[in-house]
Amino acid sequence: MQEVKVERLLINYKTLEEFKRFKEYGNQELSMLEDLESNIVENNSESPFYGIYYGDTLVARMSLYKVNKKYDAYFEPPQDYLELWKLEVLPHYRNKKYGKELVDFAKSFNLPIKTNPRINSHGFWERMGFQKAKYEMERDLGENPLIWLPQGVKEQNHSE
Amino acid sequence: MQEVKVERLLINYKTLEEFKRFKEYGNQELSMLEDLESNIVENNSESPFYGIYYGDTLVARMSLYKVNKKYDAYFEPPQDYLELWKLEVLPHYRNKKYGKELVDFAKSFNLPIKTNPRINSHGFWERMGFQKAKYEMERDLGENPLIWLPQGVKEQNHSE
Repeated sequence: MQEVKVERLLINYKTLEEFKRFKEYGNQELSMLEDLESNIVENNSESPFYGIYYGDTLVARMSLYKVNKKYDAYFEPPQDYLELWKLEVLPHYRNKKYGKELVDFAKSFNLPIKTNPRINSHGFWERMGFQKAKYEMERDLGENPLIWLPQGVKEQNHSE
Repeated sequence: MQEVKVERLLINYKTLEEFKRFKEYGNQELSMLEDLESNIVENNSESPFYGIYYGDTLVARMSLYKVNKKYDAYFEPPQDYLELWKLEVLPHYRNKKYGKELVDFAKSFNLPIKTNPRINSHGFWERMGFQKAKYEMERDLGENPLIWLPQGVKEQNHSE
């Protein structure tokens, strides 16, 4: 079996072209492309995306961002945590644990993780050890937040 | 043509049963059901949902929440604005302007509106006069925010 490596993706035209094959192509990708075209970012700057290549092809990706503890409304004690979004594996490359590899990579920072997945992916996230956050409308609005707690971290209790 | 009326939805077992027919059934709905079952909210309390009934059937809905201006990172001058989510019309009732009726209702408060729609619905939102917000990673993370500006309101410019 080929060794799987999670890499930080660089912002360049090749990466941005590969992003078009992913379903969740939106404002974030368009904005990265515009920033590159207008030299707001340099070619090969680091992006918030991490990915897995199969040969020359980007086959899985996710975005990760460290939220400062002063904005933490999920974890106890309040602390820096990772927001994870756009975890996606291209259709032909599913069921090869690439999704799990990416999530394991995110967990390796040993910070709590929050994600707001598509409704149909809850089975996957449960297998990854994520749990539903208690829904708080003012905080979560239309989200269905799931959280992952490293040892010693609890969920904030807003009803106390 | 039948007159279309947008109503604030009340939290009761009938409403929560009707919610199951909508695709975007998630933590918010489950949490409302739990709150009702454990008497945290009273039967027939007001929910953040507005909807349209066709006869006895809820056929369209959206959630609306007024965000306090101290959290406004989208509009200039900073002000209270409406977050709109879960706008959804049941399949058999589409192309009857129910979606537009709900959006017009939201606009009638004359506050700016922000929504984070599914990627494939951008055509609809454009027809409703919404525009893409300039993507800001720290603020928007995985979102594709669209905004609607009433007269005299501008988008915040974070690159200044």
